[in-house]
Amino acid sequence: MSQTLSARLSEYAGVARKLGVDAVALVPGPNFNRAVEHPFMSHERPFVLVIPADGPAAALVPNLELRSWDLVGFEGAVFDWRDQDGYDAAFAELVAHLKISSLAVEGQVMRVFVHHALRNAQPDLRIIDGEAAISGLRIIKTESDIAALKAAIGISERALARTLEGVKLGQTEKEIESALIQALFAEGAEGMSFEPIVAAGDGSARPHAKARANYAVKAGDALLLDFGACKHGFAADITRTVFLGHASDEGQDVYDTVLRANLRGHEITRAGVTAHEIDDAVTSVLEASPYADRIRTKTGHGLGRDVHEAPYIMRGNHAVLEAGTVYTNEPGLYQIDNFGVRIEDDVLVTEDGSISLTTFPTDLQVLKC
Amino acid sequence: MSQTLSARLSEYAGVARKLGVDAVALVPGPNFNRAVEHPFMSHERPFVLVIPADGPAAALVPNLELRSWDLVGFEGAVFDWRDQDGYDAAFAELVAHLKISSLAVEGQVMRVFVHHALRNAQPDLRIIDGEAAISGLRIIKTESDIAALKAAIGISERALARTLEGVKLGQTEKEIESALIQALFAEGAEGMSFEPIVAAGDGSARPHAKARANYAVKAGDALLLDFGACKHGFAADITRTVFLGHASDEGQDVYDTVLRANLRGHEITRAGVTAHEIDDAVTSVLEASPYADRIRTKTGHGLGRDVHEAPYIMRGNHAVLEAGTVYTNEPGLYQIDNFGVRIEDDVLVTEDGSISLTTFPTDLQVLKC
Repeated sequence: MSQTLSARLSEYAGVARKLGVDAVALVPGPNFNRAVEHPFMSHERPFVLVIPADGPAAALVPNLELRSWDLVGFEGAVFDWRDQDGYDAAFAELVAHLKISSLAVEGQVMRVFVHHALRNAQPDLRIIDGEAAISGLRIIKTESDIAALKAAIGISERALARTLEGVKLGQTEKEIESALIQALFAEGAEGMSFEPIVAAGDGSARPHAKARANYAVKAGDALLLDFGACKHGFAADITRTVFLGHASDEGQDVYDTVLRANLRGHEITRAGVTAHEIDDAVTSVLEASPYADRIRTKTGHGLGRDVHEAPYIMRGNHAVLEAGTVYTNEPGLYQIDNFGVRIEDDVLVTEDGSISLTTFPTDLQVLKC
Repeated sequence: MSQTLSARLSEYAGVARKLGVDAVALVPGPNFNRAVEHPFMSHERPFVLVIPADGPAAALVPNLELRSWDLVGFEGAVFDWRDQDGYDAAFAELVAHLKISSLAVEGQVMRVFVHHALRNAQPDLRIIDGEAAISGLRIIKTESDIAALKAAIGISERALARTLEGVKLGQTEKEIESALIQALFAEGAEGMSFEPIVAAGDGSARPHAKARANYAVKAGDALLLDFGACKHGFAADITRTVFLGHASDEGQDVYDTVLRANLRGHEITRAGVTAHEIDDAVTSVLEASPYADRIRTKTGHGLGRDVHEAPYIMRGNHAVLEAGTVYTNEPGLYQIDNFGVRIEDDVLVTEDGSISLTTFPTDLQVLKC
């Protein structure tokens, strides 16, 4: 095995020991792909990498993926299975080989059919949700992680600039979304962090709005764009809200409130602060404004290989942020049937403060379109 | 509730009765979105719609999604929860309200953390994997489903034509992939069915290859493109393999073999045939050739809201295909360190035969580039 692969697998063995279980199981997704340094996709075929607390790892691999799996340089036992035969026998061989009695899995990634297959193969296997500890290995970013995030963010910001230049009154949200997506790939995106949110007018008041094919943007609308490029396995996540033609007094005041909350988040961030303290500081700015009833969301979430990952920046989460953590600072205010504003930056925690990896201006922008 | 929503929920109540369980649970994904006719995404927040065999449905909804949920017109009980409070209390209220003892879930969609949350809320709840029966409601496509699939396929084929026109020797696989993706969105895609496979030369020999940034296409290469646009919630899936500059005798012969297998699949398809019979007929063509050792995959899979869904077209699956089923006919031959060929059509089963929804030519194509 390559030295990197061995070292990575050792980290997961350490998680198993920390959790007091015999092994950790990974399925395709951000942890799996980090471990093997190859982008496998999750699909209808079970594909499981099991790393015992002690001893060599083993894998259950769809036969169809064996040629790609060869690229990983894995030297442990491999149990493959073909569609025609089903996977039950391979799971039986895997558990017979492993001889474990407890297993931590990624609760946010593993689906129930794999959980059931493990249970069927070994009914007395104790399966716990080890998501927090397993994905916890990804919280502190390495230099190359941060370089990948910067690349993803750079692509996203260039695409945003191109998209805003092209916005015209009368376009539908869908048309603007399509322009944004094309710009992302033209700028070098390898994928998208999620289906973009492009929402204008009353649509902007829904934090998870879908672009509408039947809503044409009009003068005075708030236009909220929340999206991100993926690059080198990492996901950007950025939101900007602009106004089209002109911004009402209310629009300007709400924008200013959200921006002050966002800036407060940057200001308070440094190694040693808790997720609770950041959310509390940011949300307090919103709560002190006349728009407290428009608060719908917490401040943000960790960002890396997954667009939503630990640490979640919310009151009640007393996790201490260490240098190298990256999180989204994305306060917003939303009033149904009126409009919403969100401003989202990707923030790197440092020993003595923070660095905003997003550098797209956050001043109120009124598009002349 | 809208009539459509009521009718859809009744169908899932019927599945619960058929499975002999008290209720069916859906989480965001193709079944959920079909039921509520609104595209919700799966993410780190539990979001569950429970449809009892008898009686009104209930939903557990992230507070953040309530404004979007309002658009659905759901009239059952709703238990929402906020990030700050966690979701345990909402699950407890949900199960106290439902008073059920057994539940069928979508094993391929629901993740373990939701399964655990249900179990924690009601330790004696019997949870079974009802994937086949639940997703089985999607096998027979309606006219509007087929119209959506045709729209997705049309976009995909126009994007393929644009992409192939632009291919130049010396481009990397990644560059060709980027051009393909831009073409997809320029042609009106709302999303992609999956991350495209753009693989040339020895890369084409891996059925699930990832486009490489360090492989420049050269004369004589096979170039395999497997991809699809999403439109109106439906996913296209098409593969074509072309040769660059010239095709070797071996390349032509392998291509011809795969094409004969693909045509055999079209020929044998009609309502009443089994998935086994189609795969057997298609694979027999490959097996009778000098390239039998290059077979890696079954013939194909169902296609609809999900890019991989039932029925799986493989030997041993004796499911009878009914009119209105859509499946992928995608035989291939793959030799590691040499090249691979796959030809994939999306086939609609009819009473007296089949219709290929994909119409992009399948004759051997040698690009002058």
